[in-house]
Amino acid sequence: RIAAELRLALAEKTLPGLRVLITAGPTWEALDPARGISNRASGKQGFAIAQVLAEAGALVTLVAGPSHEATPPGVTRRDVVSAEEMQAVCLEVLEGSVDVLIANAAVADHRPAQRSPQKMDKGRLPNPLPLTENPDIVAAMARHPRRPRWVIAFAAQTHDHLEQAAAKARAKGVDMIIANDIGDGRMGMGATANHLHMLFGGQITDLGSGDKLTLARRLVRTLAPLLQHSPPSSSETSESP
Amino acid sequence: RIAAELRLALAEKTLPGLRVLITAGPTWEALDPARGISNRASGKQGFAIAQVLAEAGALVTLVAGPSHEATPPGVTRRDVVSAEEMQAVCLEVLEGSVDVLIANAAVADHRPAQRSPQKMDKGRLPNPLPLTENPDIVAAMARHPRRPRWVIAFAAQTHDHLEQAAAKARAKGVDMIIANDIGDGRMGMGATANHLHMLFGGQITDLGSGDKLTLARRLVRTLAPLLQHSPPSSSETSESP
Repeated sequence: RIAAELRLALAEKTLPGLRVLITAGPTWEALDPARGISNRASGKQGFAIAQVLAEAGALVTLVAGPSHEATPPGVTRRDVVSAEEMQAVCLEVLEGSVDVLIANAAVADHRPAQRSPQKMDKGRLPNPLPLTENPDIVAAMARHPRRPRWVIAFAAQTHDHLEQAAAKARAKGVDMIIANDIGDGRMGMGATANHLHMLFGGQITDLGSGDKLTLARRLVRTLAPLLQHSPPSSSETSESP
Repeated sequence: RIAAELRLALAEKTLPGLRVLITAGPTWEALDPARGISNRASGKQGFAIAQVLAEAGALVTLVAGPSHEATPPGVTRRDVVSAEEMQAVCLEVLEGSVDVLIANAAVADHRPAQRSPQKMDKGRLPNPLPLTENPDIVAAMARHPRRPRWVIAFAAQTHDHLEQAAAKARAKGVDMIIANDIGDGRMGMGATANHLHMLFGGQITDLGSGDKLTLARRLVRTLAPLLQHSPPSSSETSESP
């Protein structure tokens, strides 16, 4: 903790005053007060990026789904549970003006169609379980009148689906995709190590593998010169609003 | 940590050599490498009970679903993910002879009927989602030829359903039910505080509310004199195997 505070004070300020909104962690979609749908994201990668951005002098708001990670020093944290709550808080933060959105959270695509305020008896659980699609937070932010200058989304892929991730990015109007490899059980979601690829301007850059803080430093070092400017409007993965 | 080690060394040994198997935490029922069904249990209450039992001199094996809690000193921990894995490990531990089972884990009642080895595309998610019932670990242990002398189960209830919990206990052949109140959002699952009731021999004892370690101490103090002996076969909530 003291080491983290010192790093925050002493690190080179490559992104002074840049207003960054970063989402991290899973979302929890309750079926009743006990049960729910979720995913195995720990929030580690997003929290590490928030930490490194704050060290670089950025003004970081971290909107976090349920996570056991400690809030990095200098970061403003807003805790949420569901995708709908995450979207509401992100839109609220957007009202205060955001330069860069980094959508790292593993937002559940669906939630149970019905939610019971009391724990359901096992025998009363609907089976099959009807689901409702959750809002697409990144797409909503990318199309917002107050759209951040940069919209960067994470994509979790179990295997070589980078092309698919790029297509998804174009459809959503995001400027850059960071692809998480979750094919290897020791990597990505819920794990300490990770492997990242950056998809930007029609190019794929391998950011390599390593622990999530090391990768966060590598990512922010790569991003810093880009984030000073607007994304090139000709960027292959971008759709101007 | 040092304080915990000291307590372990210095605490009064009221349960020397008692072989306890305790389950704790949620189970995680994967739909694919990212998504799954689970519940909000943190494992805190079960880990606290394991700690206090170890301090009292018991030989404690803790079978834990995904939890961020630290392993209490002196406790043997076995990590599992799904209900099926939890059952397999519990049956394995039972082979080594167990005096007392404390089933604190919030085992998911259901798992997705199909599990994909690769992350499914959002559009390919089955909706409604077909579920399969999970094994009832407590019932299986209570009916096992190597049944522990005591089978104690936890029941999470959102409201005044103690009678229902007692009926469930009888059906499963358990000797005692500890009821968790999860009706209050600040209590029970995932929270630091809890409120426990003990259902035993046709009586309901209010163990009060408090932080989970305090309640664990109160529970073990109440249980210690009982656990030296076999449960009364006339116990209203017991069904001899």
